[in-house]
Amino acid sequence: MKGYRNRVLRVDLTARSFSEESLDPTLIHDFVGGGGFGAKLLYDELPPGVDPLGEDSALVFVAGPLAGTSAQSFGRWKVFFKSPLTGGFFKSSGGGFFASELKFAGFDAIIVKGKADRPVYLWVHDGSYEFRDASYLWGLDCDDTHTLIREDLHDPKVRLACIGPAGELGVKYAGIFSDRRTAGRGGGGTVMGSKNLKAIALRGKEKIPLAEPERFREAVREQVRRYRNDPNFERFSLRGTQNAEFTNVLGIFPTRNFREGVLPGYENIDSSAFDKIRVRNTACHNCMLHCGSLTKINKGNYRGSWSEGPEYETIWAFTGPLLCSDIGLTVVADKMCDDLGLDTISTGDAIGFAYELYEKGILTKEDTGGLELTYGNDAPVLTLIKQIAYRQGIGELLAEGTREASQRIGKGSDQYAMHVKGLDIPAYDPRGAKAHGLSMMTASLGADHGYGYAGQEIFGVPYKGKSIDRFAIEGKGELTKWNQDNRAIWNLGIMCAFASRYFDHELFGRLLCSATGHREFLDPEFLLLVGERVINLERMFNCREGFDRKDDVYPSRFLEDPLPEGPSKGQVFEADVLLEDYYRVRGWDPETGIPTKEKLAELGLEYTLEPGK
Amino acid sequence: MKGYRNRVLRVDLTARSFSEESLDPTLIHDFVGGGGFGAKLLYDELPPGVDPLGEDSALVFVAGPLAGTSAQSFGRWKVFFKSPLTGGFFKSSGGGFFASELKFAGFDAIIVKGKADRPVYLWVHDGSYEFRDASYLWGLDCDDTHTLIREDLHDPKVRLACIGPAGELGVKYAGIFSDRRTAGRGGGGTVMGSKNLKAIALRGKEKIPLAEPERFREAVREQVRRYRNDPNFERFSLRGTQNAEFTNVLGIFPTRNFREGVLPGYENIDSSAFDKIRVRNTACHNCMLHCGSLTKINKGNYRGSWSEGPEYETIWAFTGPLLCSDIGLTVVADKMCDDLGLDTISTGDAIGFAYELYEKGILTKEDTGGLELTYGNDAPVLTLIKQIAYRQGIGELLAEGTREASQRIGKGSDQYAMHVKGLDIPAYDPRGAKAHGLSMMTASLGADHGYGYAGQEIFGVPYKGKSIDRFAIEGKGELTKWNQDNRAIWNLGIMCAFASRYFDHELFGRLLCSATGHREFLDPEFLLLVGERVINLERMFNCREGFDRKDDVYPSRFLEDPLPEGPSKGQVFEADVLLEDYYRVRGWDPETGIPTKEKLAELGLEYTLEPGK
Repeated sequence: MKGYRNRVLRVDLTARSFSEESLDPTLIHDFVGGGGFGAKLLYDELPPGVDPLGEDSALVFVAGPLAGTSAQSFGRWKVFFKSPLTGGFFKSSGGGFFASELKFAGFDAIIVKGKADRPVYLWVHDGSYEFRDASYLWGLDCDDTHTLIREDLHDPKVRLACIGPAGELGVKYAGIFSDRRTAGRGGGGTVMGSKNLKAIALRGKEKIPLAEPERFREAVREQVRRYRNDPNFERFSLRGTQNAEFTNVLGIFPTRNFREGVLPGYENIDSSAFDKIRVRNTACHNCMLHCGSLTKINKGNYRGSWSEGPEYETIWAFTGPLLCSDIGLTVVADKMCDDLGLDTISTGDAIGFAYELYEKGILTKEDTGGLELTYGNDAPVLTLIKQIAYRQGIGELLAEGTREASQRIGKGSDQYAMHVKGLDIPAYDPRGAKAHGLSMMTASLGADHGYGYAGQEIFGVPYKGKSIDRFAIEGKGELTKWNQDNRAIWNLGIMCAFASRYFDHELFGRLLCSATGHREFLDPEFLLLVGERVINLERMFNCREGFDRKDDVYPSRFLEDPLPEGPSKGQVFEADVLLEDYYRVRGWDPETGIPTKEKLAELGLEYTLEPGK
Repeated sequence: MKGYRNRVLRVDLTARSFSEESLDPTLIHDFVGGGGFGAKLLYDELPPGVDPLGEDSALVFVAGPLAGTSAQSFGRWKVFFKSPLTGGFFKSSGGGFFASELKFAGFDAIIVKGKADRPVYLWVHDGSYEFRDASYLWGLDCDDTHTLIREDLHDPKVRLACIGPAGELGVKYAGIFSDRRTAGRGGGGTVMGSKNLKAIALRGKEKIPLAEPERFREAVREQVRRYRNDPNFERFSLRGTQNAEFTNVLGIFPTRNFREGVLPGYENIDSSAFDKIRVRNTACHNCMLHCGSLTKINKGNYRGSWSEGPEYETIWAFTGPLLCSDIGLTVVADKMCDDLGLDTISTGDAIGFAYELYEKGILTKEDTGGLELTYGNDAPVLTLIKQIAYRQGIGELLAEGTREASQRIGKGSDQYAMHVKGLDIPAYDPRGAKAHGLSMMTASLGADHGYGYAGQEIFGVPYKGKSIDRFAIEGKGELTKWNQDNRAIWNLGIMCAFASRYFDHELFGRLLCSATGHREFLDPEFLLLVGERVINLERMFNCREGFDRKDDVYPSRFLEDPLPEGPSKGQVFEADVLLEDYYRVRGWDPETGIPTKEKLAELGLEYTLEPGK
């Protein structure tokens, strides 16, 4: 078995036991690896209706078949779980060195079930594994947890995925952190905390054997050529996603809790503003892009703060929702969320939600403990972040996510809870980018921007040789399906989204095939089928939980209130017509939004219709 | 040249230049190494009257001849400088791995002079060296500085000595930090900050060649045998200095700013209290003692806090002076001082001083910005620590140290400034341990407890086969001279103070001789002469700066007010008679306290009497 390690580690925290499994050849054929493996393993692992934070829920950590090889930009890992925020299928992705180290340590995946009776961490090294006491780590932030576990293991090169106080305390959107790279969304850290699992620590020295080393090297050389030949490579490599203006100029930079699409003062947080505070670039394992940035604030209210990041979404999360534009706040809030273990997007959304409720008088100064949540006032933000992480004051409520918080508050506050399926909406106003919006509305995860990113609308990437009108409705069902299926394909290798611009299915297939020896991976039609299979399996996971068309829905604001200003002025999101087009293209029932039997048969997913499956 | 690296690195930050020097054979003969080298190099390096924070001042970092070898407990380093707190000679000592790494990187010492025009750090590796930008590190705490420099150098095993915000901002008692081991006292971090030097980073792979490897191994085996045969080894190894009761039971645990000697509630911070919060032990390079402790607070006001330490002095610093006994406060204050870059002893003294002034009405609530500095109230302590580190509020004043602060405040506050020569007094009341007190009163550093630690009085260690009455006056001059000279001998190897119980001059000489090949080191008489030489050279450094008998003085409290309660009740410190006895034994002029010409000639230090020397 090449490329893969052919070992899945199964951990039972209740029984404090381990077991190992080989990879099922059917699993490889049907799901290739990475995001495919994770979706199938989670689907099989979880009984329908399971409590996401109960003992029977699972976390599935997966590295892709190209992780740890010399192929560039495959250093990401994914974690699969039932989300405590959405109650549905979830996958969240982190960078750094954890994926490669998992492969070096001898495994393709780790499945964690059960609940430890007291805090533990998992130590996996060179094919061995053990539980270690984490009582003393409970309550510690992610940075300190990295430091102390490395000291405990007497090896500063150990790689970790861990949670902070937010995950321990059950904040519903707690993330999982690895060297300041985050699998932030959906509450994976919350699930980990519910299991009393503080961290997974990895170290290994096993190299990844390749099926056809010479062909593999040639494919990597081709990949590197493509990177180098891109005239935008240097720029992207320097700035990464630190360019908040790219949506602002389209008028879809959500502002004032998604009321508007243009941020006044955005020039304070645009790419040239970040050029001034960037210290150096950082990278994941074997990635020439090194798109990460270390930033440092040397003046203003947040002087002395630093972070790795913030990335685009975080820059937005602490500006747009609050009508603020202090670059220092984005840096310090990013670091604080990384340390405390919070998803920055949901944190920003929760705070923006509170600001709007405060404006509307639904939350008062009494509710906020004296904090003045008026748009443009950044003074309460750091306090709110801490309160959320430790579930103190108004943070107790906001820690539940905007959907649940609005249900508890009542008073019509649900119209200001900006989420899809419970997942708070990221930094794109769907009204000005219909396919992008359609993907966020239909994604199994809820409002996730990466599930089927519409680069055609945001960056003008051609689709089938043509440029796409971002306001147009026609054809957006097809485009969205393509974007989602295609992203699912890259996810089979857990390829970084930023590398996809250098890839076609042919080169990707060459890497996969020469690494693993599976010749079918060379066939683009095969890959497309697997991509669609993954999307449909994820959908069926949710249908099993009772999800259907009613859950593919946006807050009324997008449907009823046209964007008031800027380059997307006047646009609303035409939800029904877009959704029906999408269902049609998908082969999903137009009434229920559930994949038809025919579609499932075509994809070899009939078993998802069987009872108990 | 064996044992030594025979290389001293000289750094000029103003000129941004480096040079190297070999060790002078006279230096080796007269001063052996470590603390001897440092004293002589500093004496030679600094012109009289130099501003400690001026461009012409120097920092001398030194590793001993046994650092980096397999000998146990020689992993400490020392830094020498003119103290901004005392205006006199200073040496401060830190543990961890910095000393060994300096040897591995190819050097015995680094002399830093000048001032960089913007923040830099020094990167010394495998015999090479360079300056690196530290602008982005300015303002960062010590922990983050370690992390980011290791990332910058792509080597998690780099060892550092660095400063925190306190050192940058000129707090007069800022320390130098290496992996949470601290050269805390006297303001070495302040000097470093004044030079715009954020850190020294080290990495090296050179082994230390030994003159007589087999004899050396035999001496190490003997050392290890002695450790193992000590019935108290396990206990000491487990608890280190986390046993505050050892002075409390003698009634010399300074309480309420040195007014009393017994702390009510000391059982909250005694050794069994620390047994409950200890996570694991930590060690310096090649040290079986592993006396360090990682601690974690799991309940109470300071829940979730952790630290490496606190050690005895820090446990005291945040309890006794303030009449508090919360173990959680000692842990969180320890970590905060480590991160912000503060000496814990002077910080605790400064806060205790402020508490007493508040009680006396010399400082009011207006002065403290609303903080209530009443004995027993620990609520303001963390705020005060931050204010000191950042020189904000009342911290601006307290950052100067108690002597200078009292001079600025006036109103008779100087009687509450508990210092000798400007160095704030550590956790021993001199009234109940006369030789220990005499050493702190006469030490060139000011009130330093390690300069001539009177284990005979504190632990009942026999002296010349006899037990010592700690209240007695007779013979304390001789005992103090012995303790100081003897400590200066161990410092030649920069041996950890805690290891000295396992050593005699014979074994120490065998290690030194077999490592370096210098046979004179085998002679105890030779070593005693060098020890005395070092003490006298340090004294002459101070005399050159205008120090004399008037500076060997305690606050009047110790001389006039008997200890009111406890096992040392009724004791005062008989300063004059003790001092005269000490001068007599030292061969120092009884009127001036300056070493006589005869004494200096006996020690080969006549040159200290020459003009300009």
